[in-house]
Amino acid sequence: MTDHFEFVPGGSITTPAGFAAGSAFCGIKTSGLDLCVIASENPCEAGGVFTTNKVKAAPLLLSQQRLAGGSVQAIVVNSGNANACTGKRGHQDALETTELVAEKFGLDVDEVLVASTGVIGVQLPMEKLRTGLRSIELNDDGGADSARAIMTTDLQPKMAAVRYGSAGHTINIGGISKGSGMIHPNLATMLSFVATDAALAPGFAQQAIARAADNSFNLISVDGDNSTNDTLVLLANGKANNPPIVEGTQEGHDFERALTAVCVELAKAIARDGEGATRLIEVRVSGALSADDAKVAARSVVSSSLVKAAVHGSDPNWGRIICAVGYSGAEVDQSRVDISVGNVALMIDGEIQPFDAGAASAQLAGPDVSMGVNLHLGDAEALAWGCDLSEEYVHINADYTT
Amino acid sequence: MTDHFEFVPGGSITTPAGFAAGSAFCGIKTSGLDLCVIASENPCEAGGVFTTNKVKAAPLLLSQQRLAGGSVQAIVVNSGNANACTGKRGHQDALETTELVAEKFGLDVDEVLVASTGVIGVQLPMEKLRTGLRSIELNDDGGADSARAIMTTDLQPKMAAVRYGSAGHTINIGGISKGSGMIHPNLATMLSFVATDAALAPGFAQQAIARAADNSFNLISVDGDNSTNDTLVLLANGKANNPPIVEGTQEGHDFERALTAVCVELAKAIARDGEGATRLIEVRVSGALSADDAKVAARSVVSSSLVKAAVHGSDPNWGRIICAVGYSGAEVDQSRVDISVGNVALMIDGEIQPFDAGAASAQLAGPDVSMGVNLHLGDAEALAWGCDLSEEYVHINADYTT
Repeated sequence: MTDHFEFVPGGSITTPAGFAAGSAFCGIKTSGLDLCVIASENPCEAGGVFTTNKVKAAPLLLSQQRLAGGSVQAIVVNSGNANACTGKRGHQDALETTELVAEKFGLDVDEVLVASTGVIGVQLPMEKLRTGLRSIELNDDGGADSARAIMTTDLQPKMAAVRYGSAGHTINIGGISKGSGMIHPNLATMLSFVATDAALAPGFAQQAIARAADNSFNLISVDGDNSTNDTLVLLANGKANNPPIVEGTQEGHDFERALTAVCVELAKAIARDGEGATRLIEVRVSGALSADDAKVAARSVVSSSLVKAAVHGSDPNWGRIICAVGYSGAEVDQSRVDISVGNVALMIDGEIQPFDAGAASAQLAGPDVSMGVNLHLGDAEALAWGCDLSEEYVHINADYTT
Repeated sequence: MTDHFEFVPGGSITTPAGFAAGSAFCGIKTSGLDLCVIASENPCEAGGVFTTNKVKAAPLLLSQQRLAGGSVQAIVVNSGNANACTGKRGHQDALETTELVAEKFGLDVDEVLVASTGVIGVQLPMEKLRTGLRSIELNDDGGADSARAIMTTDLQPKMAAVRYGSAGHTINIGGISKGSGMIHPNLATMLSFVATDAALAPGFAQQAIARAADNSFNLISVDGDNSTNDTLVLLANGKANNPPIVEGTQEGHDFERALTAVCVELAKAIARDGEGATRLIEVRVSGALSADDAKVAARSVVSSSLVKAAVHGSDPNWGRIICAVGYSGAEVDQSRVDISVGNVALMIDGEIQPFDAGAASAQLAGPDVSMGVNLHLGDAEALAWGCDLSEEYVHINADYTT
């Protein structure tokens, strides 16, 4: 199937018409941009997906509540401090942050969301944040800087955008993400913001972003931890002047495919840039009894510390792959399983294949590693993405707050 | 509550009367003992718990089948090769191994179990194993050697035994374990064999060992991987000449407490000796709504890569503790949670406490680290055990087969 959309080189959240962003360094981090505002010229249809962790950060609770209330025009984000487990003062600080943004840019405070990422359990340095917010100016090409401003231990900013024509209208979808540690299925310390100039019928933004998350961010794993702050938000401002897109139509289908492509690109960028990671691992599980089985099996493989460490050592220890499939919960008949690494078949019908260890090892040595598992039980398939586990991951996480 | 039993210094699986063991080096590993036979003078009441992984090794399937069939008199174990994912030949090799043992020691082959641990997906070197088996002699004090013979990347042999008096009879319970990598709740590459000279009523061995596993081996985590070979077996030969112990009686209760103590000791030894581990982490969750909630919350904390890495760095990053509790699935009200590390309170009623970072860090720096989480929602509590995550874990696992 040929894609109906094209990626926009260098595109980001300000690629769609009518979106601007501004960033600042206010000193929450020791260096680098650590604060940004993303805003639309007009209020947007919005949808969002938030952490499933029962411990939720103050900004997340506030944003979740406002998103449920209706339209959204801006999002303010700080990195370096998660404002999580910060008690009553944390809620007050999240509220004040949105009030400052509403006041400065002349917005309705109920249409301003807030997100934070960084260390848990330390109060936000509000004086620095207030000063920083005063210095922020919005720019039509501010998206790349905003991708930097939301980074914590990320090494690379993450952004992507696509564009396609729909009945004489050009529709853009662009987004930014941050990830790195604590990335796991069902969202982990991941912030991701996606904007589109498409007009969406009421309610469709929520449906579309939830499904796109299931097929992108919920299929990646870095280290199995779900955070208190995970937030994914879609804003649609209608500047493309298309007739509002309705769920279930051809236009709705096209929009979701393009949106999912942006989300997959951002999700893969998160997995590739996992803390200490040197390789992106893509696992395709096919022949599963159901789509859910395919997803849990693929996620189980990319989540296994032993698989991840084996990839780091370019060690074709495929037994760890079938082991992770076996405990995933998916239906498995071990006498029917095929396993391959890159283009090297390691197991067919549950029987070990003679293989060239050097050739198999070479398949694990590049920046992009692919593994295939065919369960031969049905016709469902799924992809999942993860990264290798390196000594550097331990270095980073043994010494994060001190 | 004072314990009614005492630990036997240096005790192992041959501490109970009528059990003997013999070990050999046959070359499956490059060095060290790699083969052992554990046998009772007479057939035993037996119970067992096996991996929940849907991919099961050939020896495990054979042992599971024989255990269901009735009594057991001996177990043969090799380390260095898991005989997992080895297809039809793997089954034939497991069968032959038990036949050789039955023949050599004059046993009924249906009463011989077999277990293997080590690399997955490589056929057993049967010629070496046959030669090794010929050299094995059983000794009443062979337990300590058998604890060494089942080791893979374990650094320390693991054994424990307790003894208590019951109505004029002395009852001994002793066991050996191996663990190291792939250790996780619901058993991971863990082999554990426990023997007792108590007489048990029919069916009680299975009940008792399943409950003891729930309160010991199922509460430890090294790296979240469940293996294809996990096996825990209890053999009871009745040599203590006590009236057979019946479930639900005071004698049954006493036996289970003593059995659980042996299993906890072995489980903690596995966690402490996790691959690359330098510290044992004990997490106590109290105030949970239910016993299940307490267990899942405690296991979630000891399973978190971020908590484990923070302990390795003596970093009192307690936000990761509450985060892991939050995504565990247990009921949590974040405004009521207390968290402590050692004797240092870090959070009370969901509010951050001022604490001395040096003092908190010191609580994480010793070989035994304890963490407390009080959910203040009910009165259930549970302990779980794990280990820190070190660079060494990655070294070991990046290069296991090659």
